[in-house]
Amino acid sequence: MILAKVVGTVVASQKNDGITGGKYLLVRACDTRGREKGEYLVALDLVGSGRGEVVLISQGSSARQTEFTYQKAIDCVIVGIVDRIEENGQVVFRKEEGR
Amino acid sequence: MILAKVVGTVVASQKNDGITGGKYLLVRACDTRGREKGEYLVALDLVGSGRGEVVLISQGSSARQTEFTYQKAIDCVIVGIVDRIEENGQVVFRKEEGR
Amino acid sequence: MILAKVVGTVVASQKNDGITGGKYLLVRACDTRGREKGEYLVALDLVGSGRGEVVLISQGSSARQTEFTYQKAIDCVIVGIVDRIEENGQVVFRKEEGR
Amino acid sequence: MILAKVVGTVVASQKNDGITGGKYLLVRACDTRGREKGEYLVALDLVGSGRGEVVLISQGSSARQTEFTYQKAIDCVIVGIVDRIEENGQVVFRKEEGR
Amino acid sequence: MILAKVVGTVVASQKNDGITGGKYLLVRACDTRGREKGEYLVALDLVGSGRGEVVLISQGSSARQTEFTYQKAIDCVIVGIVDRIEENGQVVFRKEEGR
Repeated sequence: MILAKVVGTVVASQKNDGITGGKYLLVRACDTRGREKGEYLVALDLVGSGRGEVVLISQGSSARQTEFTYQKAIDCVIVGIVDRIEENGQVVFRKEEGR
Repeated sequence: MILAKVVGTVVASQKNDGITGGKYLLVRACDTRGREKGEYLVALDLVGSGRGEVVLISQGSSARQTEFTYQKAIDCVIVGIVDRIEENGQVVFRKEEGR
Repeated sequence: MILAKVVGTVVASQKNDGITGGKYLLVRACDTRGREKGEYLVALDLVGSGRGEVVLISQGSSARQTEFTYQKAIDCVIVGIVDRIEENGQVVFRKEEGR
Repeated sequence: MILAKVVGTVVASQKNDGITGGKYLLVRACDTRGREKGEYLVALDLVGSGRGEVVLISQGSSARQTEFTYQKAIDCVIVGIVDRIEENGQVVFRKEEGR
Repeated sequence: MILAKVVGTVVASQKNDGITGGKYLLVRACDTRGREKGEYLVALDLVGSGRGEVVLISQGSSARQTEFTYQKAIDCVIVGIVDRIEENGQVVFRKEEGR
């Protein structure tokens, strides 16, 4: 999985991916401190994540291994909201309270 | 999924991907404002998209999870036409009317 | 799919990919005008393509969705020979006659 | 597989990947001498690896080919702890004792 | 498939990829003349290849389409030993005799 930050939303009315009622979030790869860095992806949200949150992104066929995305033309999903990242013995990211 | 802009068409008469009558569009990865940036891909169109539109691209095995591409040697499809992208609270892309 | 140009051949006598009698072509990613640019790949030819031709490359599990490559350890195949590419309303590539 | 170094841990309380009780480690791609270099990934640990160890990372659908990750939305796992790497006839990495 | 050169070996005693008795080789992507260039990968050897040889690497789910790797957590295998590469009408690589 990769770390990414939720930075927005994407609306697409004409679709053919088999998904009804899903929420497509704009995410951007981020570093271990939650700083945006790198590519943007459009990920289907499976955990109710919101803007500013650091999330875990699962890609490829693994993105279809959930009840909601099973056999759907989806290759990128948010599978977790990150609470805390520890790197080399230090807490380098902590989810802000109230988010 | 990634964001890409439809920039053209690709015609291939000799094919062996199992698809009959599909439309292969030339797309190019784009940023959240719809500006072309990065790699070109050839994607099978599943939503009737046209030149200049920003679309959602699904790749890999997920590209085969539609009725039209099931068990076909296709690894890149257009699964949606993007109407609106919001980034950090601002609408940064909106599909032009009449397109 | 990606666009690539056929630039040569690869011969491997000791193999364990389940393929008998296939032709492995050396291809190189190319731009929309057919100019070589970027990475080289070794692709199994499924359409009788030849040197100098611009082809469509399908990768990953999608490369196995043909009669010849079904359940084989092949991750890259040539699924089409490109006749024409149109970009932004202009024909930027056209297959030469007699090839 | 790729070589990576275990550099930390990631905690995510809200998840939807089908995994219960797994340990998500922060790993970073490393060179053949075990020096961190390149991208960070979040990998599910399958071998009881710890910080500072060089590990083998399996990605994509292959990450689901274990009892623990079967049909789970996981695309990155640690499948081995590296003891020794030999490059061009020289041992360039050896796991420290007591780790 | 990609071209890579066998440059060494990787030993991992604690593993959880389902493979017993396999040989993990350190390979490095190479150009069409067999010169090392680019990323290192750890590939399971399926063809008895040795150091200095140029090999064909199959990745992703295709790496599991062999008897030895079927349903194993392996995403990178050596499927062939390259004897000869021809590029633009010239033989640019030939396997040395006696190897």
